[in-house]
Amino acid sequence: MADLFTEATPSRVKDTKDLHLITCSTPNGKKVQILLEELKEVYGLDWTTSLIDLETNEQKQPWFLRLNPNGKIPIIIDRPSGEDPFPVMESSAELLYLVEKFDPDHHFHFATATHRSQLYQWLIFWHASGQPHQAGLNHFGRFAPVQVPYAVQRFKAETLRIYNVLELRLSDGLAGGDAREYLAGAGRGTYSIADINAYPWVRAWSTSTITEEEMGQFPHLKKWIQRIEARPAVLRGIGDQYDEEVHPELLLTTT
Amino acid sequence: MADLFTEATPSRVKDTKDLHLITCSTPNGKKVQILLEELKEVYGLDWTTSLIDLETNEQKQPWFLRLNPNGKIPIIIDRPSGEDPFPVMESSAELLYLVEKFDPDHHFHFATATHRSQLYQWLIFWHASGQPHQAGLNHFGRFAPVQVPYAVQRFKAETLRIYNVLELRLSDGLAGGDAREYLAGAGRGTYSIADINAYPWVRAWSTSTITEEEMGQFPHLKKWIQRIEARPAVLRGIGDQYDEEVHPELLLTTT
Repeated sequence: MADLFTEATPSRVKDTKDLHLITCSTPNGKKVQILLEELKEVYGLDWTTSLIDLETNEQKQPWFLRLNPNGKIPIIIDRPSGEDPFPVMESSAELLYLVEKFDPDHHFHFATATHRSQLYQWLIFWHASGQPHQAGLNHFGRFAPVQVPYAVQRFKAETLRIYNVLELRLSDGLAGGDAREYLAGAGRGTYSIADINAYPWVRAWSTSTITEEEMGQFPHLKKWIQRIEARPAVLRGIGDQYDEEVHPELLLTTT
Repeated sequence: MADLFTEATPSRVKDTKDLHLITCSTPNGKKVQILLEELKEVYGLDWTTSLIDLETNEQKQPWFLRLNPNGKIPIIIDRPSGEDPFPVMESSAELLYLVEKFDPDHHFHFATATHRSQLYQWLIFWHASGQPHQAGLNHFGRFAPVQVPYAVQRFKAETLRIYNVLELRLSDGLAGGDAREYLAGAGRGTYSIADINAYPWVRAWSTSTITEEEMGQFPHLKKWIQRIEARPAVLRGIGDQYDEEVHPELLLTTT
């Protein structure tokens, strides 16, 4: 394996021992922040954190691309003592890496094959089918330099359709069963990385130009948001300690 | 669990034993078709297939939504004798389900934690970061009822950027290492579901309005396509036996 670090890699990253998170508190960053906080609560997991200011495009610098050629946060770098550093990209893949290595008692994933598959299905459903449409809605509804009503309407409709799939899952409305509390697991479901993966995006529905009235169609989904954000580790994971304005000393910059 | 089958579920689906695939030979369908053909070659795996004509919107019928509330193909239904049928949605999650259950010798996935994580990373990178942009390019470049040059340019640029990430991975150009043959695994990599997941999309670059000249920037990626399509199981997986015009008897229709 070629060298993962260059002369320009910040020493805070290069000198890390054990586990290091490079994040920015976007919805994707929050996914991994939340799981780390959950693992800390249950197992006392320890890690160090660096922050990236996305406006500086530090994540497109050559030193960063060696760790993630896609140039996106969050990434984790695992460096057990005496071993080569191992970088992990793609937020869902980071969640899978962390539970497989650091959650032996299956607090946030599942031991049985069918429940593990449910977890994969809802994890990937959100990341590959849901998230790109909500991200498209953010772009065309808020950030695009040109007004494209067709694209806004398209991404809004698809995001609401995806929210409705989550609503159907949580209400079990299609199959006539009982309401579920969480996306995967037996019975009414068990909180897992399938929920952690979707929550930071869905909670931000109002900043994605979704109206109160539109969101009113999804009562089970709204209750699911409330259920998740009642967890202390979730509040820490989306909180101040990952805010670059509160913790500028954690910011990475190429010198 | 509420009932997965309704009065309207086609008997071909309801009466299935063992493993059943409902597909249409789109890029997502081809992913699962290819892996099943590979597993047949190595292990003699057996399954039955039904086809959906997407133009009829059969995949949005209530009977189908009970199996996949997202209303998309492909899905697999696993029904080991004496057990409840277990439906699996989302093509990447189907690949994971199939290798975990039917590939005990790890021909198409990995036994070690770091290689398994590489597989997750490249599987999710393609499905969540690559595929939605190529799908967006298909939509705005070919199918949208309005011309939106800004959107065509945006999705084209992002698809080419993603192809370049694959090119960097396969050439190991960033880290100065040796070229890789496949996306995940030790050394030059080993063919796995990370490759199977991306191949049916990337091979269709020309139908996604990507030009010869644009594709010329990615020589390692083009060789990777050729390497994969030299496999007999891959050719069967993208071949005639999944073509609804060749096999109309496999088509599902609500009566």
